[in-house]
Amino acid sequence: VSDLQVPTSPLEPKPAESFFRSRWAEAPAGVSELDPDALAPGFAASGSDRRSRGSSTDVALLHQTEPGGSSAILLTRNASAAAPIVLCREGLDQGGIRGVVVNSGNANASTGEQGYRDAEAMQARAAAALGLESREVAVAETGTIGVPLPIDEVLEGVDACAEALAPGEAGDFTRAIMTTDAFPKRCCVELDGVTLSAQAKGAGMIEPGYATMLCFVQTDGVVEDAEDRLRAAVAASFERITVDGQMSTNDTVVLQATGASGKPLPDGLLEAALLQLALEIVADGEGSSRVGRIDVTGARDADEAERVAREIANSPLVKTALYGRDPNWGRIAQAAGKALAGETIPELGPDVIDADGLGAPEAEAEIALRLDRGDGAAHVFFSDLTHTYIEINAEYTT
Amino acid sequence: VSDLQVPTSPLEPKPAESFFRSRWAEAPAGVSELDPDALAPGFAASGSDRRSRGSSTDVALLHQTEPGGSSAILLTRNASAAAPIVLCREGLDQGGIRGVVVNSGNANASTGEQGYRDAEAMQARAAAALGLESREVAVAETGTIGVPLPIDEVLEGVDACAEALAPGEAGDFTRAIMTTDAFPKRCCVELDGVTLSAQAKGAGMIEPGYATMLCFVQTDGVVEDAEDRLRAAVAASFERITVDGQMSTNDTVVLQATGASGKPLPDGLLEAALLQLALEIVADGEGSSRVGRIDVTGARDADEAERVAREIANSPLVKTALYGRDPNWGRIAQAAGKALAGETIPELGPDVIDADGLGAPEAEAEIALRLDRGDGAAHVFFSDLTHTYIEINAEYTT
Repeated sequence: VSDLQVPTSPLEPKPAESFFRSRWAEAPAGVSELDPDALAPGFAASGSDRRSRGSSTDVALLHQTEPGGSSAILLTRNASAAAPIVLCREGLDQGGIRGVVVNSGNANASTGEQGYRDAEAMQARAAAALGLESREVAVAETGTIGVPLPIDEVLEGVDACAEALAPGEAGDFTRAIMTTDAFPKRCCVELDGVTLSAQAKGAGMIEPGYATMLCFVQTDGVVEDAEDRLRAAVAASFERITVDGQMSTNDTVVLQATGASGKPLPDGLLEAALLQLALEIVADGEGSSRVGRIDVTGARDADEAERVAREIANSPLVKTALYGRDPNWGRIAQAAGKALAGETIPELGPDVIDADGLGAPEAEAEIALRLDRGDGAAHVFFSDLTHTYIEINAEYTT
Repeated sequence: VSDLQVPTSPLEPKPAESFFRSRWAEAPAGVSELDPDALAPGFAASGSDRRSRGSSTDVALLHQTEPGGSSAILLTRNASAAAPIVLCREGLDQGGIRGVVVNSGNANASTGEQGYRDAEAMQARAAAALGLESREVAVAETGTIGVPLPIDEVLEGVDACAEALAPGEAGDFTRAIMTTDAFPKRCCVELDGVTLSAQAKGAGMIEPGYATMLCFVQTDGVVEDAEDRLRAAVAASFERITVDGQMSTNDTVVLQATGASGKPLPDGLLEAALLQLALEIVADGEGSSRVGRIDVTGARDADEAERVAREIANSPLVKTALYGRDPNWGRIAQAAGKALAGETIPELGPDVIDADGLGAPEAEAEIALRLDRGDGAAHVFFSDLTHTYIEINAEYTT
């Protein structure tokens, strides 16, 4: 059983402190929870602890020691994508990822030609240390935008991490990738003879393109169509959340599957793990004290439902009502009316809006809107908007 | 000279405390500023002061005593439009408006059939009191959504206002239409023998459809094509602002022109007055301490420029940077990159982003982004995001 209960997370603990402790994340039947800091077999990891000693960045390294298998990577669609995103698009064998190198503390975004060369240098140094080709190593970075990367320090960190690689152990890796995160987000679970581990970070600048933060997933299961499988799981997890409606320049999700167990990755395992991790990112949204789920049904189509749900989830009036426990259905009517501006709809009142969850005592609130225009449905998970968000983002100065 | 300097407004006073005191609102050459609480000739107004004595609503009444002339009205496009909006669409002679009745304190939105009948009752009572047809009276309401209108109290207020009508005097009217406004927003100006007065209210739930709040404008100038003229002036003023990216269910702008001066409304007078009033609404944005202007140039077309400018203006990361005086150009690159997600653009860095205004000491901050993709340009004025916004909206409970 997991020791994952983290006092600073507002997600409500279920009995037995399951990793799958959100009311919205159902544990697959028969799943076992292992040490959440463990890695699936065939992987080793490490992470530096330099920021606690005054450095501006930390480095984390992941090595798939078991050759073969499959992989996939999803990258932000932000047009101001960071250097590592461009490198992973252009200079990575996306189906043959064997290593991952991460720098946290500096986004290496809007850093020009030098930034791209720095990302290449990270990739090459990690590849050399791990005995891989550069094209087999994914690079991910997170932190401040527009500040040149202290590349010498980062490369020293890569070397140190390569020496510290620990088979089966992801604790240092998970802590090293955190930035403004208040608690670590990770799991290691087993089902039907297949182990899956995952480590995520993210707390602000969170709304989907498809990826929305950094997340690394390892398994010894067999995963054919890794990209399709990852894309579908992300669509149902990281694509369903918003903290502040922003889209990061650096979002990255990586899946690596060795296939060494000889058994297929069970249906629902990846999906449930990513959903719980996504909900933890919302719960850790900068300053977040509560998590809401808005369900929109009866839209003309899924796209319309999604548009209405996002307008509600990102409305600062709805987000402050969630914070203030105000079951204010009028704000939901207003936000939906903005999403459908110019259209004629039946009046939205308490008969079709359930806002009671906003005022409920639970940290996880469910609200719903029924439009009666068709069969389109969508849901979005969102954080509240609190004083702490302002503090973090107004008082954090470049 | 105006006495309009209001200590609670963050707009910077110009020498002589001009009404046109924003750096962005240029006074038309030769304009005279009259008592800002005055009305143009041919109009009378009044307003109740019932909320200070425990009532939930106030009523304000405006009467064009000079017959004839022209008028226009612009109404929110929110699909959850309030009852008075629907009534003004269906049951108003939009070109022949002679009276305006306003209730502040209750939006009369999402109030069903009864809400529509209540708005009709307000219109009929005001018309009877003013000796007009119902179709000549515009109805505007602002306040809480989804609460039944206390119609008996409102009708009593209409009667009392009818008895208190004061020719040439809008002070009570202006104060009665305020809700969360921290200061009154109004002017009375004269140019080339034509007088124009205007009264506005608005502080939150502000982003354009086209109208964004309540604003009433009176003039004795001749205005042919009143609707086109009003629409153009609103496009350059109330359509250029955002406080929290929301769209009200009740936004209304009314222009009434008697034409009694026999002279045309001078070019630029309406436009300058509405721009200054729009900037005062941003400056009075809930919790606002600063106002920013983002100029986007070099977009593929005006629509793209507008989309990028709004993404920046509504980004909570940019808004908190404005509050915290952090010249963080990376947040502008991120927001622009979200608006252009999926597209390939040259990297956005300090060479094309001017974020210095965010960190400048002035209350009015100018920031700019040059995209180098075409000739499209747009600008948007926006408020910062502060602790007070959270307080107002989280602690205000239905």
